[in-house]
Amino acid sequence: MSDSALTITPVGSEPAAGVAPEVLFMGLDAGGTRCRARIRDASGRLLGEGEAGPANARRGSRAAMDAMITAARAALVAGRLPGDGLSRVVAGAGLAGVSQKREMEAMRAEPHPFARLELATDFETACLGAHGGGDGGIVIVGTGSAAYARVAGAEFRFGGWGFEVGDDGGGAPLGREVVRHALRAADGLAPRGPLAEEALARLGGDQDAAVEWVGRAAPSDFGRLAPLVFAHAERDPEAARLRGECAAHVATLVLRLIACGAERVALVGGLSEAITPHLAGPARDRLVKPAADATEGALMLVRKSAP
Amino acid sequence: MSDSALTITPVGSEPAAGVAPEVLFMGLDAGGTRCRARIRDASGRLLGEGEAGPANARRGSRAAMDAMITAARAALVAGRLPGDGLSRVVAGAGLAGVSQKREMEAMRAEPHPFARLELATDFETACLGAHGGGDGGIVIVGTGSAAYARVAGAEFRFGGWGFEVGDDGGGAPLGREVVRHALRAADGLAPRGPLAEEALARLGGDQDAAVEWVGRAAPSDFGRLAPLVFAHAERDPEAARLRGECAAHVATLVLRLIACGAERVALVGGLSEAITPHLAGPARDRLVKPAADATEGALMLVRKSAP
Repeated sequence: MSDSALTITPVGSEPAAGVAPEVLFMGLDAGGTRCRARIRDASGRLLGEGEAGPANARRGSRAAMDAMITAARAALVAGRLPGDGLSRVVAGAGLAGVSQKREMEAMRAEPHPFARLELATDFETACLGAHGGGDGGIVIVGTGSAAYARVAGAEFRFGGWGFEVGDDGGGAPLGREVVRHALRAADGLAPRGPLAEEALARLGGDQDAAVEWVGRAAPSDFGRLAPLVFAHAERDPEAARLRGECAAHVATLVLRLIACGAERVALVGGLSEAITPHLAGPARDRLVKPAADATEGALMLVRKSAP
Repeated sequence: MSDSALTITPVGSEPAAGVAPEVLFMGLDAGGTRCRARIRDASGRLLGEGEAGPANARRGSRAAMDAMITAARAALVAGRLPGDGLSRVVAGAGLAGVSQKREMEAMRAEPHPFARLELATDFETACLGAHGGGDGGIVIVGTGSAAYARVAGAEFRFGGWGFEVGDDGGGAPLGREVVRHALRAADGLAPRGPLAEEALARLGGDQDAAVEWVGRAAPSDFGRLAPLVFAHAERDPEAARLRGECAAHVATLVLRLIACGAERVALVGGLSEAITPHLAGPARDRLVKPAADATEGALMLVRKSAP
């Protein structure tokens, strides 16, 4: 779900106590759109980064693990490290699409080439990264949406139950509303403004083409239509309405985390910058910039708990 | 899409001119939930009725044709007619799931055992039945929704583009909103009233069970949750809100047909009785009771055009 492009902030510069210098640390952000890998040595020095395709565990644990290994090998190559070096790597990974225990268990059962692999959800790693391992909350506003917080040892989680019924505020449900509006406008059931015009053009020009597009579309395809809402909101009332609904969903998640005791909340994910100015004051006022990204949070899973 | 249970009104009692007395006429309502068949002789006398499972052409033309043949054979049996009698039958069928030309062409290409088979969409046959072959409009409010009218030789069609993006006002999108509300209530993001309580119980009790349910659910499964909205609307504000949104969608479709010149509009489908009292006056005032059901409309396809 997390899809942010943040400046990389190395976490810590001291070697973790007792770790032999040849051990390497890797963070993996196994997202629904792509999988990112980052290697640091025990001193925290960045050695290399790599990327691979989608690693959404809901689409199959083996495919997700393969994407993680591909990204990990790409990071080794980028760091000019031997290709067989994964057996020296202690890796932490944040996984998209594991809202169910079953999916996490399937991932834990997959064979892997790492010296050790610690798994967490993508919202746990996003939260670790955003607050440098400290208490706080995050609201993911990427293809999907979800809210998560750690407060005094307790964990809270809201939303993120999937594209069809539980990702309100995320890009995929917003893109679906764009398609719905385009079809209604084409039928003369809603005004045919610039949002509908551009969406219809992207969907093939008419209702039949749009229905065919929907039949082939993945959540990420719907998500790619979400930016149209922000592009047209100043001159198309329907776009403004959809932007407002999206902002209301995100604000509800932020306020829920605050009510759970989260002192600081960060928005992460591809839509977070676009939606922030439109949140209601009480939600917007509590937002902080994320300290680091989910890949860095995944590194913290193992760099904190390393022997 | 059409799913109404109406009193059967025989259409005409005079034999169509020039039809040999041994020719039988059949109407087929090939819906997404079930397929109904009805046989009449040339004088309009009811000989038998039969039923089979779903015949949604979007799920495959061969399976849809097989369901039609099964329902047709059941009608022969009910009428104590010989089982090989389909070669004497001139059949008309209204098909769900053929919003695209491609799907209708696939159905036309399927081999069939009838003497002749005339195909139309389910909204055409629903309209023929509702207005006895005369001008008028229908709004289908079943698992899906769609609006259709015939006015002075012209045809109009709005909505009905599918569960994900184009069936607003239908039972499946309404049921999806019930699931969405139940998940939000379980997360403390919306009030947990009687609608959410009953929906959560039906979905397995908690968020994980609900997400698993969604993974297995067909549009008809979502549609079966829609009646909860009507059951709880008097004492649950969220149910009242969802009912109001549903009524607004249906009213928009009714008014669009009136704007196209439809003097009379009938609601058909499983939710039509429940939603009618909640339509805004200007839409409700133009509604008429359907004269007959879509199976009767399918019969009119061939009894009107018989040689």
